[in-house]
Amino acid sequence: MSPTAHEHIVKSFDSELQRLYGEIVRMGELATSQLDGAVDVMLRRDTKAAQRVVANDEAIDALEREVSHDVLRLLALRQPMARDLREVYAALRISADIERIGDYAANVAKRSTVLNQSPVVAPIHGIPSLARLANDLVRDAVQAYADRDAQRALMVRNRDVELDAQYTGLFRELLTYMAEDPKQITPCTHLLFMAKNIERIGDHATNIAENTWFVVHGEALPAQREKGDLTSQ
Amino acid sequence: MSPTAHEHIVKSFDSELQRLYGEIVRMGELATSQLDGAVDVMLRRDTKAAQRVVANDEAIDALEREVSHDVLRLLALRQPMARDLREVYAALRISADIERIGDYAANVAKRSTVLNQSPVVAPIHGIPSLARLANDLVRDAVQAYADRDAQRALMVRNRDVELDAQYTGLFRELLTYMAEDPKQITPCTHLLFMAKNIERIGDHATNIAENTWFVVHGEALPAQREKGDLTSQ
Repeated sequence: MSPTAHEHIVKSFDSELQRLYGEIVRMGELATSQLDGAVDVMLRRDTKAAQRVVANDEAIDALEREVSHDVLRLLALRQPMARDLREVYAALRISADIERIGDYAANVAKRSTVLNQSPVVAPIHGIPSLARLANDLVRDAVQAYADRDAQRALMVRNRDVELDAQYTGLFRELLTYMAEDPKQITPCTHLLFMAKNIERIGDHATNIAENTWFVVHGEALPAQREKGDLTSQ
Repeated sequence: MSPTAHEHIVKSFDSELQRLYGEIVRMGELATSQLDGAVDVMLRRDTKAAQRVVANDEAIDALEREVSHDVLRLLALRQPMARDLREVYAALRISADIERIGDYAANVAKRSTVLNQSPVVAPIHGIPSLARLANDLVRDAVQAYADRDAQRALMVRNRDVELDAQYTGLFRELLTYMAEDPKQITPCTHLLFMAKNIERIGDHATNIAENTWFVVHGEALPAQREKGDLTSQ
């Protein structure tokens, strides 16, 4: 192969990888904007707008299918090795995590439509700040991925502890509220599941961070702590 | 390359694929036995045994790491194409789904330890039959995968509707129970999350079925219905 032909193939592989990264960053933007949207329609008690948020999830799903398709094509045609292979592998994993984040955001919007069927419940105020923290984690994780910044990725995982603690506080508050006013059991149950969805978003941000670490270092980030919520301990 | 050398490489690739399939089937066996175990320790109110179920989840996680490792090695060394590439890709996806099923089973066991802190709550009886149905789906999905039986895989997806309906019934029953006896709100909330975990296991069985379809047919199973629970509709 002439040096020019080789250069051409390398350049073209790089541009395909760039396309993949772009799709993932775009997925991350959509997913965080979906969670912002879900909280917004919940606070405005706007059922029609909530249905739009639910419908918009399809755009994220479509991007994930595109990433999977591109990954399979890259693997078949380019047969990447070493770091390139890790890049392709991580793209697949990260796109699956962002797809789940989108599902959770859509579920928050969907459950808000049930809340609109009864009067406002007090502990709803805990949801926006939980969602803000979760979205910070997702944005940081996607930015760390985009910059291949393993240190920043590590910080995402550490900050997920904050989200778990805030979720646990809200969980307890919701249980107390239900006990004091049993009429609110149904809406509070949906708030519980909304909070749980948001706590899970933090776990997926952590997964993105761990895959970013893997791309950069070629090995798994060492286990640190038990993941997830503390309400069943 | 001599025909014998080529045959040797092909045989060795096949045996590596077989190893991958074996790991996945083993993961499926472990995950279903974990869910059986979680329900058993819940019914026996055995906190020590529940902690063992939680600890056993590590065996599934370790197998998933092994599958990922084997997939990366196969991609790098064998550079599979067409159906072989789909096989490797599906193995990665399916192992991730089974790993999540294991997490949900472990979470059921973990939450059962909270139930042991208060008297028995009546609607606990709904959990075993929900778990039985979910485990049927997982066993069918893994068997359909092991046999590359796309028709059987299709049936798994269709039967997930039953699980969603049964989950929705239990969800409503639990809410009614909480309203009638607010002292039971905390244990019933954990039962709600346990039921939700089991409903999610059905979604992952569906994912396994969809990936099996993809391996066999080389294209995605057409969308059929909205997945998931109906309690927020």
